[in-house]
Amino acid sequence: MKKPLIIITLLIFANVIIAREHPSLMMTGKGVAEMKKGMGKYPAFDASIEETKTKADFAIASPIVVPVPKDGGGGATHEKHKDNYYSMYYCGIMFQLTGEKKYAGFVEKMLDEYLKLYPTLGYHPVKMSSNPGRLFWQTLNDFVWLVHTSIAYDCVYNYLPEQKRTEYNNKLFKPMAQFLMDGSDANNKIFNKMHNHGTWACAAVGMIGYVMDDNELIQKALYGSDKTGKNGGYMQQLDELFSPDGYFTEGAYYQRYAIWPFVIFAQAINNNDPDKKIFLYRDAILKKAVSTLIQMTYNGEFFTINDALKKGFSAQELVFADNILYAADNSQKELLTISKNYQSFFLPSDAGFAVARDIARGEAKEFKLISQLLRDGSDGKMGGLAIFRSPKPAENTTFLMKATSHGLSHGHFDKLTISYYDDGNPILVDYGSSRFLNIVVKYNGGYTPLNDKYSMSTISHNTVSVDMKSHYEGDIKVSSNYAPTIYCYDISNPEIQVCSAYETNASPGVKMQRTNAVIENLGGVRIILDIFKLTSEKEHTYDLPFFYNGDMISLSTPYTKALEQMGIFGNSDGYRYLWKEAWAKPNDSKVCFTWLKGRRFYSVTTVTDSKSDLFFVRSGANDPEYYLRTDPAFIIRQNSAKNHTFLSAIETHGKYDLVVEKTENAVSSVKSLRIIEDNDNYTVAEIEVNEVKARFRIDYNKESSAAKWTFNKY
Amino acid sequence: MKKPLIIITLLIFANVIIAREHPSLMMTGKGVAEMKKGMGKYPAFDASIEETKTKADFAIASPIVVPVPKDGGGGATHEKHKDNYYSMYYCGIMFQLTGEKKYAGFVEKMLDEYLKLYPTLGYHPVKMSSNPGRLFWQTLNDFVWLVHTSIAYDCVYNYLPEQKRTEYNNKLFKPMAQFLMDGSDANNKIFNKMHNHGTWACAAVGMIGYVMDDNELIQKALYGSDKTGKNGGYMQQLDELFSPDGYFTEGAYYQRYAIWPFVIFAQAINNNDPDKKIFLYRDAILKKAVSTLIQMTYNGEFFTINDALKKGFSAQELVFADNILYAADNSQKELLTISKNYQSFFLPSDAGFAVARDIARGEAKEFKLISQLLRDGSDGKMGGLAIFRSPKPAENTTFLMKATSHGLSHGHFDKLTISYYDDGNPILVDYGSSRFLNIVVKYNGGYTPLNDKYSMSTISHNTVSVDMKSHYEGDIKVSSNYAPTIYCYDISNPEIQVCSAYETNASPGVKMQRTNAVIENLGGVRIILDIFKLTSEKEHTYDLPFFYNGDMISLSTPYTKALEQMGIFGNSDGYRYLWKEAWAKPNDSKVCFTWLKGRRFYSVTTVTDSKSDLFFVRSGANDPEYYLRTDPAFIIRQNSAKNHTFLSAIETHGKYDLVVEKTENAVSSVKSLRIIEDNDNYTVAEIEVNEVKARFRIDYNKESSAAKWTFNKY
Repeated sequence: MKKPLIIITLLIFANVIIAREHPSLMMTGKGVAEMKKGMGKYPAFDASIEETKTKADFAIASPIVVPVPKDGGGGATHEKHKDNYYSMYYCGIMFQLTGEKKYAGFVEKMLDEYLKLYPTLGYHPVKMSSNPGRLFWQTLNDFVWLVHTSIAYDCVYNYLPEQKRTEYNNKLFKPMAQFLMDGSDANNKIFNKMHNHGTWACAAVGMIGYVMDDNELIQKALYGSDKTGKNGGYMQQLDELFSPDGYFTEGAYYQRYAIWPFVIFAQAINNNDPDKKIFLYRDAILKKAVSTLIQMTYNGEFFTINDALKKGFSAQELVFADNILYAADNSQKELLTISKNYQSFFLPSDAGFAVARDIARGEAKEFKLISQLLRDGSDGKMGGLAIFRSPKPAENTTFLMKATSHGLSHGHFDKLTISYYDDGNPILVDYGSSRFLNIVVKYNGGYTPLNDKYSMSTISHNTVSVDMKSHYEGDIKVSSNYAPTIYCYDISNPEIQVCSAYETNASPGVKMQRTNAVIENLGGVRIILDIFKLTSEKEHTYDLPFFYNGDMISLSTPYTKALEQMGIFGNSDGYRYLWKEAWAKPNDSKVCFTWLKGRRFYSVTTVTDSKSDLFFVRSGANDPEYYLRTDPAFIIRQNSAKNHTFLSAIETHGKYDLVVEKTENAVSSVKSLRIIEDNDNYTVAEIEVNEVKARFRIDYNKESSAAKWTFNKY
Repeated sequence: MKKPLIIITLLIFANVIIAREHPSLMMTGKGVAEMKKGMGKYPAFDASIEETKTKADFAIASPIVVPVPKDGGGGATHEKHKDNYYSMYYCGIMFQLTGEKKYAGFVEKMLDEYLKLYPTLGYHPVKMSSNPGRLFWQTLNDFVWLVHTSIAYDCVYNYLPEQKRTEYNNKLFKPMAQFLMDGSDANNKIFNKMHNHGTWACAAVGMIGYVMDDNELIQKALYGSDKTGKNGGYMQQLDELFSPDGYFTEGAYYQRYAIWPFVIFAQAINNNDPDKKIFLYRDAILKKAVSTLIQMTYNGEFFTINDALKKGFSAQELVFADNILYAADNSQKELLTISKNYQSFFLPSDAGFAVARDIARGEAKEFKLISQLLRDGSDGKMGGLAIFRSPKPAENTTFLMKATSHGLSHGHFDKLTISYYDDGNPILVDYGSSRFLNIVVKYNGGYTPLNDKYSMSTISHNTVSVDMKSHYEGDIKVSSNYAPTIYCYDISNPEIQVCSAYETNASPGVKMQRTNAVIENLGGVRIILDIFKLTSEKEHTYDLPFFYNGDMISLSTPYTKALEQMGIFGNSDGYRYLWKEAWAKPNDSKVCFTWLKGRRFYSVTTVTDSKSDLFFVRSGANDPEYYLRTDPAFIIRQNSAKNHTFLSAIETHGKYDLVVEKTENAVSSVKSLRIIEDNDNYTVAEIEVNEVKARFRIDYNKESSAAKWTFNKY
């Protein structure tokens, strides 16, 4: 679809405004024609259109209410303005698909009300945000309003008399874009910020720019306020917000949210400036970002690293990402599978139609989840997220080591933490965030105070806390300066996949290096070796938790459980939110803790000595308002230690079959586990499982090209 | 398939032994012929045969080991003898299906070993049971061994030389049957007992009797040791162990277990004595029992009343019940659906073949779950289980009131307890049992000590405890003498379904009557009115818990939560196993507690006064070995009360949609709730929901034919 060369030249050299086609954001004239032709052919797509129509018809049947902004998030005026942009969006789409004027008329009537209201507004009266919007309490919601309304406006543009358009453009949309870009220093900062709010801002301004043919707005959206592309704008966001592997620094949950404005604006750019080849930009970074996002899942749910709630492929943002990316590159047949198996609707647009059509044609291909290292940082040098999958897909196993940078305001103090999923269940889990989204009585649906205090703290993660303190003493400013170093990530042999990363700044004076070897089959069971080496010249207390999911089955050493009274685990940082449920001293050079989840048993065998203590804890203490879940953990504590290496074997074993009431191998098969050698240069761990002895050696000071680990059975 | 009249006559009048056909227990000659003909036609059935073959081949390839009995449940010799009967069973079936002598030879070789071992055995050396077996620590397992081995023996009977058969019969099977019937007084008692162990005993003796053509054994199995049919035997079990509605007094979980020997023996009887019409006996009680068992489920899982673990349609016992009952009466097309949707295999037999074939023919019909009262007691006069389903199947709602008799040794002290399931989840839950089945380290896989102490106690159920004591003071002997009376069960109007039951003996001097009205739509929400009326001349403390499943969202009155220290809820009966997590005084004439599970909100609004206290508790205190789950409950306590009526409204409301991040109606719509009148003759409750006011009146002293309740909106 190349435009004639002459026009491109003009655009580049003269910024001449060319009358654009409408619609050209979510839909195109060609796409609408195809959809109309396809009606009745693809029942699943017809259902999505029917749903859009139902919503549009419901909007038309309801009185138009455009209230003076008053309430914060979840409140009445907030929800009404949200409803309004959705209503316009649905009606705009239905106008394109049916040509029925009632739909366009509705958008016009609604815009008339906004035209009256908007010029009268100052900052939103709820003073809760440092970026107050006009329609909403924060500009973020104003951006989202404008993105949706731009799509609706685009759909009805040709229906409106020119004088009306001029009025909307000059009195509503241009002032709004102006306000969102430059209404205050804070607004200008957000607009030019390398942050997902900035992406929403650019998408909003850029999309309304396309509708109005306002090249000034488009250029600013693409290249920042100064139009240089160096101090803000969508293109720079594409350069900086994703790592070369398509990883967004806040983690999967927010990558899902951030991807929305990225793909929706990309589609608008592609429709209007196809020669920009936006979907191929930076080695097709958007394609990579969506694919990476899909990779950061287990059973269709995102990894709960950093601030995260349960979300997965079914989320509406993923429908946008999936459909738009597929339409941009029809060779990605695996995206059809995501839509088919997990998503309940299609975009009512060119993109959604393409997906529905090609699924119906039987073109869906499996989306293969793979082992990979997702480097963090725009240059890929801020640590990363190491993902391991079993070479046998039927095993349905995923192991993670998180050695990323802090991850902006939604990051947790969890350097080198691990997660484990198996047989359909989370097994070693990351708490995610403490938040009851959209539930007003729970702290207005926002992050609860215990999110900062507990969920972000180090002790709530499967990594080492030093002296009962969070990493970086829980200071995001300090934490944001550093990232762990990925020392090795080696998946060349799927039978033993290895990752090692270190971090020297999280606890001053303590170097922490964690090495994990995922061994697919050792004496008949899967063993994940976990070598957490701490090096320090001073004595410390080191705590290593394993937050397990399932029923506590056994501990190999006698333990005492709180019976009639239960106290808290400690006073500092996250500790005070944990109940101290049970405690024990090891009675051997190793202890073994076993739990049951679903159809399998899991054990952590860990090396202990006389300075070790063991605890079972559960979250929920000091939680006066029921903000926390009551999740259990097994904790190994090493007291008064300078250098110390935690060596553990995480074992997947046995079978628990309730259908025929048969249990196999409920007991750990790890016969011995010990550290043979441990020094600055290397650690050698020895393990014996079901008569198979093996040694794993990790070297710490090898050149990047040298072999960093060895593994031998004997 | 009637046999000639002459033979029947001989059987009845002369007890002459007639040479029977083989096989005739699980399979028949005709069935085997059909299965052979059908091979390759029904892939799902072929898979079950393939699985049977794999197991048979594995057995043949393994050395035959018949150890001297030594270990208890889960131990090595126990598991070996279990494996052995399964191996013989699989090989017997495969011999019939293939004619390959290696399979029959395996059974023969194995029986030779048992022939050597058995005559040398005394009582099993593990002295843990009052009914020690010889091969196993309890006779129950010996029964199961004999049931399976009888099937195998039957399959290879014609292959064996007569002299071999005579030897097996006289030296192995007859002595074994003799021992199981009469080896001790205890054994004789079990054999004649109205109990599921008795059913296993009769099935074992009767089935080997059929194989050996030993009419004496058959008659005793059918009619008890004295052959009168009045003091034991299978026929009497059919009369007494099920209520007229097919309810087995121990509850769904044990009905599943008990049904196994019932159906497997019934099939053997039917094949050998078709004129007995065993499947039509007592108004087709077996058909009713299986259908009732299937009705006692939610989402394919059994209600967890009494001692229960998670089990459902997939359990192997249900495969037997489903397949055998279908084969007995091909008109039950709904059984095909149970097999098709929930079960992973078919019986490798005539019955399994019929099911697989008819599923393949597309004959499966929906199994409709309905509202019904399942009367308890062989005469139906020992209370009952009241089940309510929503008239809209899409709502997927089930409400239960349990007003049954005690339920033998697996019963709980839970008179008038309720359960609620909605939208795929348990909402108000029954704990079930404390047991880690087949997990040796957890109390040998048996019921844990906390099963008696906590899971059976009244306070662990959604019913009223009086003065912190369990019903009948936790004495099963007393409890077994009584049952509640079902005062009314009325489902004539699916929009408001009502049940009321009372119990006068659970707490001496206190009459308790509970009335539930399941109102499908009141002001747009489902309301279950819960009127728990207590009448007493003395002052008591009444505690009414609601064990909820989900996240605690809010309580309408301020509460205090245990922050740094947590103690137990009380000292008596089950109380000491509960942590006292939070407490409150009501600040109004009603309080409302809201929780969230899945996609919906649930609220309990309850009438309170100055003598009310509120608590949140959680199980897990005084549990030194991690036997309990940590389940939460909301408890309403009424202090120093003589007569008291708890009036609560259990409300299902709102929508929690994480896909589009939208929450609707998270807050209860119950505007007012009060008791208008309350006396010995009736209680009138008034409720207002979303501007709809309604009154519900329950009359307590109406004749059985009179209208017992009224409901009016105004």
